[in-house]
Amino acid sequence: MAVKVAINGFGTIGKRVAEAIVKQDDMELIGVTKTRPDYLAMAASKRGLLYVPENKLEDFKKADLEVAGTIDELFQKVDVVVDATPGGVGKEYKPLYEKYGVRAIFQGGEKHEVAGFSFSTLCNYDDAKDKQFVRVVSCNTTGLLRLLCTLNKEFGVERVRATIVRRGADPHETKKGPIDAIVPNPVTLPSHHGIDVRTVLPVDIATTAVVVPTTLMHVHVVNVILKEEVSRDQVIEALNKAPRILLVPTKISGIKDTAKLIEMARDMGRKRHDLYELAVFEESISVNGKELFLMQAVHQESIVTPENVDAIRAMFGLATKEESIRKTDESLGLVRTFDEVISKIASF
Amino acid sequence: MAVKVAINGFGTIGKRVAEAIVKQDDMELIGVTKTRPDYLAMAASKRGLLYVPENKLEDFKKADLEVAGTIDELFQKVDVVVDATPGGVGKEYKPLYEKYGVRAIFQGGEKHEVAGFSFSTLCNYDDAKDKQFVRVVSCNTTGLLRLLCTLNKEFGVERVRATIVRRGADPHETKKGPIDAIVPNPVTLPSHHGIDVRTVLPVDIATTAVVVPTTLMHVHVVNVILKEEVSRDQVIEALNKAPRILLVPTKISGIKDTAKLIEMARDMGRKRHDLYELAVFEESISVNGKELFLMQAVHQESIVTPENVDAIRAMFGLATKEESIRKTDESLGLVRTFDEVISKIASF
Repeated sequence: MAVKVAINGFGTIGKRVAEAIVKQDDMELIGVTKTRPDYLAMAASKRGLLYVPENKLEDFKKADLEVAGTIDELFQKVDVVVDATPGGVGKEYKPLYEKYGVRAIFQGGEKHEVAGFSFSTLCNYDDAKDKQFVRVVSCNTTGLLRLLCTLNKEFGVERVRATIVRRGADPHETKKGPIDAIVPNPVTLPSHHGIDVRTVLPVDIATTAVVVPTTLMHVHVVNVILKEEVSRDQVIEALNKAPRILLVPTKISGIKDTAKLIEMARDMGRKRHDLYELAVFEESISVNGKELFLMQAVHQESIVTPENVDAIRAMFGLATKEESIRKTDESLGLVRTFDEVISKIASF
Repeated sequence: MAVKVAINGFGTIGKRVAEAIVKQDDMELIGVTKTRPDYLAMAASKRGLLYVPENKLEDFKKADLEVAGTIDELFQKVDVVVDATPGGVGKEYKPLYEKYGVRAIFQGGEKHEVAGFSFSTLCNYDDAKDKQFVRVVSCNTTGLLRLLCTLNKEFGVERVRATIVRRGADPHETKKGPIDAIVPNPVTLPSHHGIDVRTVLPVDIATTAVVVPTTLMHVHVVNVILKEEVSRDQVIEALNKAPRILLVPTKISGIKDTAKLIEMARDMGRKRHDLYELAVFEESISVNGKELFLMQAVHQESIVTPENVDAIRAMFGLATKEESIRKTDESLGLVRTFDEVISKIASF
């Protein structure tokens, strides 16, 4: 029996998770919600998937959009709701999920306390079993945790200091900035990202963050003190072995910035140029004894898609961690090596 | 017998035309050229398509990239070369095309005189027959000509004044600007775009251009005096009927800028978010007697792809104009109506 899934909020994350759900053989997409008519609502309507709040039915009728039902009706038809509403709005829906006894997966825009359990596949997949509420951590936290849980498993992590250089807005957003400034955000240190990491991996971590005028990806400049001395080759081997981490060699490829990483994803034929993998600039990896430096890039729009799919399997006990990673990554076409990247580009 | 095609320059235009050629049943992609090793060269090599200048063989050997041959060898194997080298470089290759008696299609970065014939499908398809050299006009000129040849056929065009608001760089380019200025470019009026339009359609046109800090698309603010009085509905009907022009309604869709147009292309699943269609903001169409105003957007990376494919058919007499448009547009998945856009988005 496939798990019946609803997506609350058919925006940047919601549309990606909805499409990923359709690709899973153990899940079924029942509906998506929209609060305002727009072209995505038109597409959802055309597919018979559109559910809207009861008090918005009139707006959609005026826009000539057929709806499949109200969100209350939708939540009663499904086993789990992926809450992809804007940050802070998920909390408002929690009473409704409780009312209908439906499970829910919140996103990183909600506080840890809303779900009481924060999730990242490589770190704590098994602990999600039978939870009613799970929160998939944010894009930046997901990127940090994929790296840190991999390093922690292999070598032990003693201390982490990282600077998050955040994109100012997503590509489609025209009302957000900055467009000509570098913004310490927050200016009071540390930033919440390190604190958020600790909701999943209890480790000595402090992060700082600035926002810059770009839309494509975030970049993390990471400094880690490991529990044992390592060689650069050992770090590279560990990252190469880990799923969802892609080492990108700059010199031979010419891929030396976030713009080129996204061009690579475009050339790979990834829908919406999504890069689900955490991209580590291979040449940036520098090791001295127990100390490691590296720079990594996070595609903020898509990196949490695989984790949302896994979270469903984890909550319902549908598969082991390894099995879920395999199914999710195969269905979404994730790669583990740069050679696979080249093969995808060559396969037009 | 399929026409054998080489792509000289496997960059922004070259990779798109190469992939389009592979989709045609009357053409065969024989090889592509690169002058420097990078990840696209790696992909071309993996597919056995990589040809390089003889004096660069050593560079590719050092980069451990297998090549299929030299560019001289490639040009002797094919019927036509699509020259997608950087602007001004195509001219340097012309003697080589002449030496091997191979036909060539230049891009809009070359002067009209290099080919002696400038091409735009909706305007002068039939005149390309049996030409050795053809130049597909630039992205901006292609956008203007799709509009103007459509209007000219329906109503006659008396005079055109247009301002071209140009993107500063393509998404992958990190060494070009501006990044915080609006640049009159050129500051001496008029700009070359109108002059370029006249290499295809002899009409009273003057254009001006500014460059702005964005990467996604160009926007044209167009003012046309028609030869007869028309209604707004007649203009909309003419544009709706025309191939490769897509009217985008803003109010019902929320698509109100170039960022949202590109998000729409991403949601449609277009590879590299390519938007081959000239996108006209429907609400911008304003008519008063013989005078028409509108705003349209041009995806600079991809809009000339269909015209390059057509140019091959036109030169070799493979198909009528209508038949070529049909084959090209079907193979690339072009749409004519916004309803088709919604269907594509709904078909995940």
